[in-house]
Amino acid sequence: MAERLLVIGGDAAGMSAASQARRRRGADELEIVAFERGGFTSYSACGIPYFLAGLVPDVGQLIARSPETFRDAYAVDVRLRHEVTEVDLGRRALRARDLESGEERWEGFDQLLVATGGEPLRPPLPGAEAKGIFGVQTLDDGLAVRRALDEEHPRRAVVVGGGYIGLEMAEAFKVQGLDVSVVHRSPQPMPTLDPDMGVLVADAMRKMGVGIHSGEEVVGFEADHGRVTAVVTDARCIPADIVVLGLGVVPRTTLAVAAGIPTGPTGAIRVDRRMRTSIEGVWAAGDCAEKFHRISRGPVSIPLGTHANKEGRVAGINLGGGYATFPGVIGTAVTKVCELEVARTGLRESDAPRAGFDPLSVVVDSTTRAGYYPGAQPISTKMVVEKRSGRLLGAQIVGREGAAKRIDVLAAVLWNGLGVDEILNLDLSYAPPYSPVWDPVLIAARKAWERVEDTVSECR
Amino acid sequence: MAERLLVIGGDAAGMSAASQARRRRGADELEIVAFERGGFTSYSACGIPYFLAGLVPDVGQLIARSPETFRDAYAVDVRLRHEVTEVDLGRRALRARDLESGEERWEGFDQLLVATGGEPLRPPLPGAEAKGIFGVQTLDDGLAVRRALDEEHPRRAVVVGGGYIGLEMAEAFKVQGLDVSVVHRSPQPMPTLDPDMGVLVADAMRKMGVGIHSGEEVVGFEADHGRVTAVVTDARCIPADIVVLGLGVVPRTTLAVAAGIPTGPTGAIRVDRRMRTSIEGVWAAGDCAEKFHRISRGPVSIPLGTHANKEGRVAGINLGGGYATFPGVIGTAVTKVCELEVARTGLRESDAPRAGFDPLSVVVDSTTRAGYYPGAQPISTKMVVEKRSGRLLGAQIVGREGAAKRIDVLAAVLWNGLGVDEILNLDLSYAPPYSPVWDPVLIAARKAWERVEDTVSECR
Repeated sequence: MAERLLVIGGDAAGMSAASQARRRRGADELEIVAFERGGFTSYSACGIPYFLAGLVPDVGQLIARSPETFRDAYAVDVRLRHEVTEVDLGRRALRARDLESGEERWEGFDQLLVATGGEPLRPPLPGAEAKGIFGVQTLDDGLAVRRALDEEHPRRAVVVGGGYIGLEMAEAFKVQGLDVSVVHRSPQPMPTLDPDMGVLVADAMRKMGVGIHSGEEVVGFEADHGRVTAVVTDARCIPADIVVLGLGVVPRTTLAVAAGIPTGPTGAIRVDRRMRTSIEGVWAAGDCAEKFHRISRGPVSIPLGTHANKEGRVAGINLGGGYATFPGVIGTAVTKVCELEVARTGLRESDAPRAGFDPLSVVVDSTTRAGYYPGAQPISTKMVVEKRSGRLLGAQIVGREGAAKRIDVLAAVLWNGLGVDEILNLDLSYAPPYSPVWDPVLIAARKAWERVEDTVSECR
Repeated sequence: MAERLLVIGGDAAGMSAASQARRRRGADELEIVAFERGGFTSYSACGIPYFLAGLVPDVGQLIARSPETFRDAYAVDVRLRHEVTEVDLGRRALRARDLESGEERWEGFDQLLVATGGEPLRPPLPGAEAKGIFGVQTLDDGLAVRRALDEEHPRRAVVVGGGYIGLEMAEAFKVQGLDVSVVHRSPQPMPTLDPDMGVLVADAMRKMGVGIHSGEEVVGFEADHGRVTAVVTDARCIPADIVVLGLGVVPRTTLAVAAGIPTGPTGAIRVDRRMRTSIEGVWAAGDCAEKFHRISRGPVSIPLGTHANKEGRVAGINLGGGYATFPGVIGTAVTKVCELEVARTGLRESDAPRAGFDPLSVVVDSTTRAGYYPGAQPISTKMVVEKRSGRLLGAQIVGREGAAKRIDVLAAVLWNGLGVDEILNLDLSYAPPYSPVWDPVLIAARKAWERVEDTVSECR
């Protein structure tokens, strides 16, 4: 008889795992059933802001693979609008509720993959239930915002939260012609950057006409006839016709915790390199699973589609009888706010001491192309470096067109533990339309190495 | 008394060295004199095609630092239009001729840096002395072509040579509205790519309306009243009002060889990691110096400004009493032909066996952004991988906007000797405006790893 794999969550991690498992084991060997609470499978949540900006006209374009594809091409039984409400590890079964009919059923499993994703943070603020306040985590959320834009023609948008999704939503509203303000708690937007780089983001966004209210705590919402009219912070009241909450997500683990699947210090489900939890035959992948940070050497929770896809692939290969491992993350991320490009990898300067490193840093201004080549754009590169060894610990980039993707070179060398003295000699590509003869990345490494050498001299 | 450093060649390598040496040792400790045959110092030869295309309006923009800057800010005595005609290692002196006055003088040195650069290949073809036939290696060459374009209004341009400079000149003429043909000997343009990638370049250029005559040998030129009228190949006669020779360069070592400075198997001057030749107190850097290829583990001659700058820096630090090494190259290069982006690093599939590797390869088509994001462009990535280990040996990219600079990630991991199984899990940045959720580089690594796994299975 075929083994039975149940997958909780039909997005990136769950469906990558299902398809990888299927590639290795046919339907006669492995039955696969996936339960998805929402109405879609395998979609790009990261694409929602671009759908809302009108850059992606049809929401269907965000769906990588439909349930039909999974059914027909992968023989995966996908049950949409089915919420798993309980997992019984003793009986090796889960209870799924059909959200349309309300019917509940127990389904047995041999293998279980928990891919429940992340849960958007929704602090219980007064007025938070008013109409016109939205999250933007799921396609269903995105469709709701789209409807509000089309039907209610809001004029003033307030985004609560200054992280990736917050800034991307600010861009979306800006592109749609709304007045946009961003309100957030940290001293600068993009708190995953050090403040000296975050201030570059804040300055650029203000120049684009986006209101930035940093260091302010949202204390509630005002409403009129149940419809939001303003966001109230500890410093001001910002009029709003539409509000988006982009306060980040935490691992969605209620179900797993209730079942007794162990979580780690970050609150995410603890997994090993093969994506196994500590319960035999129970796996986890994606935003609900804890990750190992290769630079801090500690556990982290970083909700990101690219990790979810990789972890899902690894889980699926292993579930299919193959062997694969997920080697961890280094915190690489990128975003775009209108013409502004922002990227980061590794540790911030402020993270480094906590991880046991004594850091120094440099910030270098350069251009994305040879200075004389048309379209050369500014790029500021920060490098965080271990003072005694010169080893790269992290990097941050803020710039214009052509700036952000350079973070990948730094991610690659950071992954390999290189020192800036080696990085500055890397054989990177050069032609005037693509970079100055010393790529900005190499210039930053040169400056960082000069700082390291000066520091060592001071010690003597 | 101050030590005396003479530098032969006032471009990237020579002047980087001079300025680095000066940073470490003041004029009272080290006298620096640089001899430059041409009329400029430290200029971007790579920028000449863009000057000719009209993208860079003023040739002065290509000059990184003027002789005056070197004199005033670095106390380097730059002698323009001075050709060094002989080096006497026994007497530790060189003879320099002032090309304007014809006067010759012997100058003694304690340290000598040979930075004579590359010599454009000019086969002695019948008719090659006709007017309207140009090289494009120096700024003086570039100015001559510019004058020809402005004063003679040529209509039909033929570029001889299908490498980087050839294709960049094809673009320049195209931008200037000329009819352009490229004629070259190899089966596909861009012989530094494997033919399966070169054919993508040829196809794209033909679609842009550039005539591509591959596998043809130029046998001579036709002229009328001493002015070129056609390029004659072994297959046809191509009418031409202007001809550019882009046949590549070889190390310019006549002077060094005559002096007895040893060269390596590539014909370039042999240097160690600190850029020392085997003669005490004699250094070499830039296009005239041999480089170590970190993947083939053998000597290569790769004329490229980015190497020249790095090697010059290393030589200069050492000359200034510091310590620096140049770790070698991996053959990274990039170019742009109108909308087409072409890049490479490491070994070609065809190089690998010669270097002792048994390779396999994959070519993967993807997009530069999420497929649904506006402006997503095609990108083809080839990976060359050692069959038994999965180690990356080289990569090639042909695509459109946003494609080429991705080679740097592959250069970084190639530098570190990573296998494709590790590369596919790299934490690269992801956001829809910058890449699909699996970056093209990661997709290529996944496919390559699948091929490696299949191959190993076959062996069992």
